[in-house]
Amino acid sequence: MSYRRINNIPHTWGTAVNVQAMVFGNMGDTSGTGVGFTRNPATGDKEQYGECLINAQGEDVVAGIRTPQPIASLREVVPQAYNDLVGVYTKLESHYREMQDFEFTIEEGKLYMLQTRTGKRTAQAAVKIAVDMEKEGLISREEAILRVPAEQLNHLLHKQIDTSQKLNVIAKGLPASPGAAVGQVVFTAEDAVEWAHTRDAKVILVRNETSPEDIEGMNIAKGILTAKGGMTSHAAVVARGMGKCCVAGCESIHVDEKGKKFSVGGTVLKEGDVISLNGSTGEVILGEAKLVEPKVSGEFAIFMRWADAVRKLNVRTNADTPRDAKVARDFGAEGIGLCRTEHMFFEADRIKAVRQMILADDLEGRKVALTKLLPMQQGDFEGIFKAMDGLPVTIRLLDPPLHEFLPTAQKDINALSAEMGVSVEKLEMKVRSLHELNPMLGHRGCRLGITFPEITEMQARAIFQAAVAVKRQGVNVQPEIMIPLIADVSEFKVLKKIVLDVAAEVLKDFKVPYKVGTMIEIPRAALTAGKVAEEAEFFSFGTNDLTQMTYGLSRDDAGKFIPYYVDRAIFERDPFQQLDRVGVGQLMVMAVKNGRAARPGLKCGICGEHGGEPSSVEFCHMIGLNYVSCSPYRVPIARLAAAQAQVNDNMKAKKPAKKKKTDKKQTGKRKRK
Amino acid sequence: MSYRRINNIPHTWGTAVNVQAMVFGNMGDTSGTGVGFTRNPATGDKEQYGECLINAQGEDVVAGIRTPQPIASLREVVPQAYNDLVGVYTKLESHYREMQDFEFTIEEGKLYMLQTRTGKRTAQAAVKIAVDMEKEGLISREEAILRVPAEQLNHLLHKQIDTSQKLNVIAKGLPASPGAAVGQVVFTAEDAVEWAHTRDAKVILVRNETSPEDIEGMNIAKGILTAKGGMTSHAAVVARGMGKCCVAGCESIHVDEKGKKFSVGGTVLKEGDVISLNGSTGEVILGEAKLVEPKVSGEFAIFMRWADAVRKLNVRTNADTPRDAKVARDFGAEGIGLCRTEHMFFEADRIKAVRQMILADDLEGRKVALTKLLPMQQGDFEGIFKAMDGLPVTIRLLDPPLHEFLPTAQKDINALSAEMGVSVEKLEMKVRSLHELNPMLGHRGCRLGITFPEITEMQARAIFQAAVAVKRQGVNVQPEIMIPLIADVSEFKVLKKIVLDVAAEVLKDFKVPYKVGTMIEIPRAALTAGKVAEEAEFFSFGTNDLTQMTYGLSRDDAGKFIPYYVDRAIFERDPFQQLDRVGVGQLMVMAVKNGRAARPGLKCGICGEHGGEPSSVEFCHMIGLNYVSCSPYRVPIARLAAAQAQVNDNMKAKKPAKKKKTDKKQTGKRKRK
Repeated sequence: MSYRRINNIPHTWGTAVNVQAMVFGNMGDTSGTGVGFTRNPATGDKEQYGECLINAQGEDVVAGIRTPQPIASLREVVPQAYNDLVGVYTKLESHYREMQDFEFTIEEGKLYMLQTRTGKRTAQAAVKIAVDMEKEGLISREEAILRVPAEQLNHLLHKQIDTSQKLNVIAKGLPASPGAAVGQVVFTAEDAVEWAHTRDAKVILVRNETSPEDIEGMNIAKGILTAKGGMTSHAAVVARGMGKCCVAGCESIHVDEKGKKFSVGGTVLKEGDVISLNGSTGEVILGEAKLVEPKVSGEFAIFMRWADAVRKLNVRTNADTPRDAKVARDFGAEGIGLCRTEHMFFEADRIKAVRQMILADDLEGRKVALTKLLPMQQGDFEGIFKAMDGLPVTIRLLDPPLHEFLPTAQKDINALSAEMGVSVEKLEMKVRSLHELNPMLGHRGCRLGITFPEITEMQARAIFQAAVAVKRQGVNVQPEIMIPLIADVSEFKVLKKIVLDVAAEVLKDFKVPYKVGTMIEIPRAALTAGKVAEEAEFFSFGTNDLTQMTYGLSRDDAGKFIPYYVDRAIFERDPFQQLDRVGVGQLMVMAVKNGRAARPGLKCGICGEHGGEPSSVEFCHMIGLNYVSCSPYRVPIARLAAAQAQVNDNMKAKKPAKKKKTDKKQTGKRKRK
Repeated sequence: MSYRRINNIPHTWGTAVNVQAMVFGNMGDTSGTGVGFTRNPATGDKEQYGECLINAQGEDVVAGIRTPQPIASLREVVPQAYNDLVGVYTKLESHYREMQDFEFTIEEGKLYMLQTRTGKRTAQAAVKIAVDMEKEGLISREEAILRVPAEQLNHLLHKQIDTSQKLNVIAKGLPASPGAAVGQVVFTAEDAVEWAHTRDAKVILVRNETSPEDIEGMNIAKGILTAKGGMTSHAAVVARGMGKCCVAGCESIHVDEKGKKFSVGGTVLKEGDVISLNGSTGEVILGEAKLVEPKVSGEFAIFMRWADAVRKLNVRTNADTPRDAKVARDFGAEGIGLCRTEHMFFEADRIKAVRQMILADDLEGRKVALTKLLPMQQGDFEGIFKAMDGLPVTIRLLDPPLHEFLPTAQKDINALSAEMGVSVEKLEMKVRSLHELNPMLGHRGCRLGITFPEITEMQARAIFQAAVAVKRQGVNVQPEIMIPLIADVSEFKVLKKIVLDVAAEVLKDFKVPYKVGTMIEIPRAALTAGKVAEEAEFFSFGTNDLTQMTYGLSRDDAGKFIPYYVDRAIFERDPFQQLDRVGVGQLMVMAVKNGRAARPGLKCGICGEHGGEPSSVEFCHMIGLNYVSCSPYRVPIARLAAAQAQVNDNMKAKKPAKKKKTDKKQTGKRKRK
C-alpha cells in the first residue's frame, strides 16, 4: 500500500502472478546462484556488479547467512556458465537498452536466468548511466533525458543521511524539505541564534509551527522540525527556499515551547539534546546520524545541458534576496518568477519602520514610516536586479496581512511598547483590531494596497528608482510588477493606476521597460480571466493559494487529515505537493484560454510550490505556460521535468510515423525506436 | 453616490438635466403650489393625499416655514384649478397605471403640473396598491406581482424604529438583520441571560463577535450589536434565523468585554446603559427610540397567494429546531433546505456529551459519548419531521470544526476541567492540538466524518430511527441527508457508504424513502460536479462558503474592507449579500449543467444566505434550480422574488409576439402591454 502510494501506482491496479518450473542452485559445487547489475547502481560505472554463492539457493544470498562472493569468482569454478552469464547480461542490457538487475541460478554447470528487470539506482548513477548509454549509442539523447526521474535530482543537491547505519527513528513527519541535518534541539528562534552565535552550536529548531518572525532562527538552524503544518506550511516553504532540511507536520511529537522540551511516545528531549533529521523521508532520529556528502559527477552538467536544449518551458526561481537569486542563477534559473517583498520587511532594521507604519493613526504617520522603508526596499531591489542582470524579475507587492508584523505574546508586546514608546494598551488594541479569524482569506494582498494605497505607491517607487539606478550602471533590468490576490479586475485597475502614476513620474527622463501583471490565485480571478487579461500584462498562477481555495483547504491545517486521506486513497496525492489537474488545473486551463483570447500571447507562468514538482511541471508544459518558477534548489528538477515533458511530446508526435515503418522491419528494430 | 449604491444604480451612468419655462405660485391669492400623491403612500388607501400653500412657491412647502393646507382646501379658493388637478392626477394615474407623486403650481387660477413620477410608498402601501389596482382592472395580476420590491416585504415582518422622532445616532454598522431593538447593553451571553431572568431586563448583547456558545444569550437578547463580522457573520446569520434585530461589523465601536463597556468617539457606554438598534439601516442609537408595530394589511395574504400561483421555484427554509420549522411553515416554506445538526450539539444537555466525545482518547471512548447523543439527536429530528409533515427535510451532517465545541478562555477551561474530571493540562493540550490557523478551510464538514466515521454513523442512525418512529405515527417523512464540504467525489462516497449501511440496518423491516446528496460549497466540487452527481442524489449550493472560497474572502473578516470596496465601487455589491453571478454564478451554472448531464433531473437548490435575497433568487430561477432555502423570516421575500422572476420570463416570452401587433395599433395600447 505504502509502496504504491510512494511510487504513485494507483491502488486500483491488481497484482500479477507467474507460474514456472524451478531450477536448483544447491546441486553441488558446480551449482550456485547470484544476483547482479549490469552497471554499478550506486555510481553508474560500467563494471560488473553482483554477488553469488556456490551450492546455494536464492534465499541464501538474500538471507545473509553465508558471505557471498563477487560474480567474477565463478570464472574459476564454472567457466562456461560464467562466460554464458557475461554474454547473457550484456545481451540483456543491449536488448532492453537499460541497466539490468538480474538473478541467475547455475544447475550443474548450466546457467539459468531467473529474472531480469530494470535496476534501481542512485540519482548519481542514473545520470551517469543515461549519459554513458547515449555516448555508447545505446539510447538516443531524448531517451537519456527520460532516464532520470526528475524528482531524483533532489538527492544530488543536498547532504544525506547515511542509510547504511542503524538509525533510532523516534518519529516520522512530512518530508518537507530534503537533505539531512544533525544538531542540538532548541525551541525558539532567539535560542537558535543565541546557541549558534555564543556557543557555536549546530542547532535544530523545533517548533509547533514557524512564523515569519522565526526567519533568522530558521536561517541559522541546520534543520527544522515542526509538529504542525503541511508540505507547504511556512516552515516547509521557507526551508525549501533556503535549501534547508525540514520535517514538518510531525504530529506525534508534543512540543512544549515554554518548557523547552518535546516528547514523543515515552521519550522526552530537552534543549541541547541531539537529534538528526532526514528531510527526504521525514524521519526524526535520536542522536547523531552519520551524513554523506552528495557526489555530483561531471555527467550531471552534460545531462542538464541536454535537458535545456530540448525544453520549451522556461524555468525561473522564487527568490527574495540577491543571495537566493545568485544561487538560483547558478542552478540555471532564467529569471525570478516570484520575489516576495514582505520578506524584506522582517529584517531587524526594517521591522521597526513597518510597525511604525502599522501603528500610525493616520495617513501622514504612515507616510513618515514608509519614507524610512523606501530607501531600504530600493536597495533590496537594486541587489536583486544586479544578480538577475539580463533576466526578468517578477516582484510581488506586499501580500501578508499586517498582523503578521506585530507580536502577539504579552512579553513581546511589552517589549515593543517600550521600544516604540507606544502604550501597551494601544498596542494590544491594534493587535486585537488586526486579528483575523481566517487570515488566509483576510485583509491581505491587493486588499492592503487598495485600503492603504501609500504602501503600493512606496513599493512602486522603490522598484522604479532601483531600476533606474542599476540601469544607469549598465544593468539590463526587466521588472515585472505583480499584484497579488485579485478577485476582480476592478481591484487590479486600482493598483495598476497607482503603479503607472509612479512610473510616469520616476521614469519621466529615463525609460525602463516594465510590465504590470497579476497573480491568479483566487478561483474568481481564474473564472474572470478574460476581463483580468484586458488589464494585466501577465498572469502568474499562485497555485498554493489557488489549491487552498479551490479545495477549501488550509495548507497550514490540512496536515491533520491529508495524510489520512492519502493513506486511504481518498486523495491520490496531496494536492499541495502535486498540482491537481482535474480541479485546480481546470481553472488554470480556463484562465490561460480566456486570458489569451483577450490578450494574444499573454505571458503565463506559475509561482506556487508546484513549479518545482515534476508532474506539475509537466502539466504546466501541457497547458502552454511560458515558465515555471520554483525555489532555487528545485530549479534543476524543473528544468529536467520540462525537458521530459517536451521529449514525451516529441515521441508522441513521432509514433504514428514509426508505426508504418515497424510493419516492414518489425523484429530487428522494434526496441530501437 | 450613496443613493446610487443603495438603489443599485451603476456609478457609470450620467445625470440628465431638463431646461424649461417657469410658472409662479406667488402671484396672489389665486396662485399657489402643492405636492400630492394619487393614493396614500403610507397605507395605500385610495384617497387624496397632499399639501398646498396659497401664494407660495414650491420651496415654501418644503421649507416648512408656513403650515401647508390639505389639497382639498383649494376647492374653495380656486375651484376650476382644483377640479382640473383632480382630473389631471386621476388621468396621470390611469395613464401610467401607477400611483403618482405629483407637484403643481397654480398661477392666477390656472393649473400647471410641474412634475409627476411614480410615488415612493411603504411596503404596506405597496402591497395594498398592487392588489387594489389589479382589482380595479388597472394592471394585470402579473404586473401587480412586480409592483412590490421583494426586499421591501422585510418591513412587513419586523418591528421598526419610528423614524419621525429625532434620533441620536452614535455609530453605524452593517444592517445585518432587520427590525429594531431597544434595551440595556450587556457584554456576555451569560450576563444577557442573567439580566433577562433575574432582573426581567430587555437587553442588547454587545460583543466583538459572537460564537456558537453565545446562542442562549443571543436568543434572550432583544438585539445584537457586534464590532466585527460581516453580513453573514455568526451574529448576522443566527440573528436573521431568529428574526432578531442585529447590527454587525460596527467597526467604529471599541468593545471592552472584560471591562463591560464600549466606546465610540468620545462616548463610553457601560453595562446597563440603554441603546436602540435599527437593524434595517445599521444605526446604533443612544437611548430609547420609539418603536412602531408593522401593520400587515389583509391584502398581504392575497398578494402572496398570487405570487405562489405563478412561481416555479420552490422555497424552503433553513431551520434547526421544530419551532423555527413551524415559523417558516407559517411563512409559506415548502420544506427544510438546511437543518444544521451542530446547533443541536450546543444545548446545555448535549454539549457535555459532545465534549466527552472530543476528549475521548480512542474510538471506544467516542462511541460511549456518541451513544449518549444518539437519543437526543433522534428526538430533535422527530420534532422537526413532525413540524414538516409531508415536506422534505434536508439534514446536513456535522459541519463545524471540533474546536468550536471547546472553550478557549483559561477560566472556562478550568471550569470544564472540574466538571469533566479531566486535567487542565490535558484539556489545554486538546485545545491546542485542535487549534487551526484558518478554521474555515480546516478539519470540518465531511472531513470530520471521514476521520471519525462513528460520528456520521450516529447521525445517520438518529435520522433513520427518527424517521421510522414518526412514520409509525403516521407522519409523512422525507429525509434528505446532506454531506457537507465535498471537494472530491471520493469523499462523498466514503460517507455515503456509512449512511447507506446504517439505512440498510435501520430500515430493514420498515421502509422510509430518503435521499443522500451533497452541498456544493467548495469550488472544486462545482468544477467536478459531473463526477459528484454520479453518486449524489441532490445538490444544494452552500453559497456562503462558495462565495468565501471563490473570492478568497472570509466573511468574518471582510467587514474591514468590503464596505470600503463598495463605497468606492470596486465591488458593485457585497458578494455575501447578493450572489455574484459572474464568478460564483459561473461555478453554479457549470455544476448544474454537468450535474444534470450525469444525472438527468438532478434536484438542485441553494441553502446559503443568498436564498432569501431577491436578485440572488432571480439568478437561481434563471439557472434552473429547483428551490431556494432561506431563514424563516425571509421566506415570503423569496416567494415573491421567485414569482417576479417567473413573471419577467413570461413577459419576455410574450414580447416578440406583441411586437408584431404593436406595429398595427401602436398608439392606444402601447402602455397596456
